[in-house]
Amino acid sequence: MKLYDMGRAPNPRRVRIFLAEKGIDIPRQEVDLGGLEQFSEEFTAMNPMQRVPVLMLDDGTVITESVAICLYFEKLHPEPNLFGKDALESAQVEMWNRRLELHFYGPVSQAFRHNSPAMAKREIPQVPDWGNACRDKAAEFVTFLENELGKREYIAGNRFTIADITALCTIDFMRVIKLSLTPEMKNLSRWHTAVSARPSAKA
Amino acid sequence: MKLYDMGRAPNPRRVRIFLAEKGIDIPRQEVDLGGLEQFSEEFTAMNPMQRVPVLMLDDGTVITESVAICLYFEKLHPEPNLFGKDALESAQVEMWNRRLELHFYGPVSQAFRHNSPAMAKREIPQVPDWGNACRDKAAEFVTFLENELGKREYIAGNRFTIADITALCTIDFMRVIKLSLTPEMKNLSRWHTAVSARPSAKA
Repeated sequence: MKLYDMGRAPNPRRVRIFLAEKGIDIPRQEVDLGGLEQFSEEFTAMNPMQRVPVLMLDDGTVITESVAICLYFEKLHPEPNLFGKDALESAQVEMWNRRLELHFYGPVSQAFRHNSPAMAKREIPQVPDWGNACRDKAAEFVTFLENELGKREYIAGNRFTIADITALCTIDFMRVIKLSLTPEMKNLSRWHTAVSARPSAKA
Repeated sequence: MKLYDMGRAPNPRRVRIFLAEKGIDIPRQEVDLGGLEQFSEEFTAMNPMQRVPVLMLDDGTVITESVAICLYFEKLHPEPNLFGKDALESAQVEMWNRRLELHFYGPVSQAFRHNSPAMAKREIPQVPDWGNACRDKAAEFVTFLENELGKREYIAGNRFTIADITALCTIDFMRVIKLSLTPEMKNLSRWHTAVSARPSAKA
């Protein structure tokens, strides 16, 4: 089994943190996104979406999409549970993970892809106006999240789940669009300090 | 329990088809999206994302996001299984559902939201260039999917899953951006005829 990875990219980091929380260690191979290795014939044959991360199983079966890779390991190694236990908790974790992806990770990522000269060969066409709109959406979601984290300890409830991993990776990735948490965001700061102190955050 | 629904919108349809496949019938309440009811104070208190569908449980607990609502029912009523059985199948269903959402449903929806005058009060700001780019992305994914459906009977494998529901709702929704399947797309046409003939497709 092998994980196709990229050290600084946020999606592979989600999987690395997830695996660290589970105590799972698997071989990793770095993909040179800057050198456009993801567009190569070899990589495209493995993942037609031309993105990392990619998990290749020993028999050559490929699983892509960060959450799909995480789910694979959750099913094989159920503890510690990170996707929710009963029907209600599972739905709440899924809901929060998706809210984060659609209204936060997505906008941060799109703001970066559409406004960074470094992404001109990876996002075609770049639409700067869309990047700007996404930056505004991301900033708005941060305010929403600050309020939500006044109601409970973690993103989806009172324990750490995959939704916290998505939120942490997104917030740390906000630097690329020059957004950051401010000291007035007391709830987010409290939460960010706590999740960043977990050993998995260094994965 | 009550489902806040909207007859013509694709996301609520995903949930309705899912429930029909499970043989579950729950009360539904129509939300007037055209009349901007989703932006009302009452609706926003229920779903701050201001979108349908929303599931409200008898104790007032709210679950939003189509897939989270489906997952709730999958956990309570495991048969027929629609999310995948073992670790590998679950990961493959998740992977395909996400590929569809990120590279197909997302672009179709964004093309509509950014180019339709009817969406001017719901998508602010509209960025027509982004809508156009998304229409191209959607068309490209259709070609990709046509090729993939030459390899197996359904989207994620050899049986019907939630990924087929996402694909069906997206393809039928393509009419709003004036894209449609063509007779040359033999694999997609074969699949679309089969899934459209299921009683659930009318839900």
